[in-house]
Amino acid sequence: MSTEEGKVKNEIAIRELLDALVRSVRAKDLAGVMTAYDPKLVAFDIVPPLRYVGAESFVKPWQELFGTFDGPIGYETRDLTIAAANDVAFSHSLNWLHGTLKTGEKTDLWLRFTACYRKVDGRWRMVHLHASVPAELKEGKAMTSLKP
Amino acid sequence: MSTEEGKVKNEIAIRELLDALVRSVRAKDLAGVMTAYDPKLVAFDIVPPLRYVGAESFVKPWQELFGTFDGPIGYETRDLTIAAANDVAFSHSLNWLHGTLKTGEKTDLWLRFTACYRKVDGRWRMVHLHASVPAELKEGKAMTSLKP
Repeated sequence: MSTEEGKVKNEIAIRELLDALVRSVRAKDLAGVMTAYDPKLVAFDIVPPLRYVGAESFVKPWQELFGTFDGPIGYETRDLTIAAANDVAFSHSLNWLHGTLKTGEKTDLWLRFTACYRKVDGRWRMVHLHASVPAELKEGKAMTSLKP
Repeated sequence: MSTEEGKVKNEIAIRELLDALVRSVRAKDLAGVMTAYDPKLVAFDIVPPLRYVGAESFVKPWQELFGTFDGPIGYETRDLTIAAANDVAFSHSLNWLHGTLKTGEKTDLWLRFTACYRKVDGRWRMVHLHASVPAELKEGKAMTSLKP
């Protein structure tokens, strides 16, 4: 396999991993979400704390998110960019999270999403993720209504 | 050069790029900061908008940041993780931004920082960056006083 073929193959593998992750989020499938992550995941999530260390620590925030939505979650990826070499890869996109909460409120949020991957024993896993909205620092506001 | 030697050499190159970037931020050296970036940089910055496309569009936010500080900027990197393969790399860290503003106020902010790199014509450049603080979504608050 040439370097170019390997690159394309790796980029397809990352795309498949992300597609599966998006489907798992929509279906509130916690086990499905967790298969995307390396056990040593370091997550900079949209909500506090500053970081989660270890995939195990990232179970609870997903359970809580899934618990707040009434019915399935709307989750779409836009402007996805993927780069993959030998055993290191990254992706970034704007992700749209939307749906109805159990409180009856609507959620309609665009977030920035960056993910980093390693291939271990022939299998790609997410080792790092960073999800956020921008902040208005002077007033301490989270900018939750920006649209791309 | 073995694959392992290449990996170490690439990781050293990324570390040097980041060290130079940190020194440039401290010295308010705009040209120095810009040499870290690929012209096609896509930046998810700590402040709005959702994203900057093209390094050229990222000049103004740096000028504005440099303009708000009185004297040099305090900028340090903690828990830096780097992974580099052939021509693709990523890094993540917690960065401490601190100093005195021209208004007399103190800034003391920990941010999450993820960067993605490509090697083009033998030279590493940052093609993507993501800087943020977490958000308290219910109240729409940016969490600017979290410490690691």
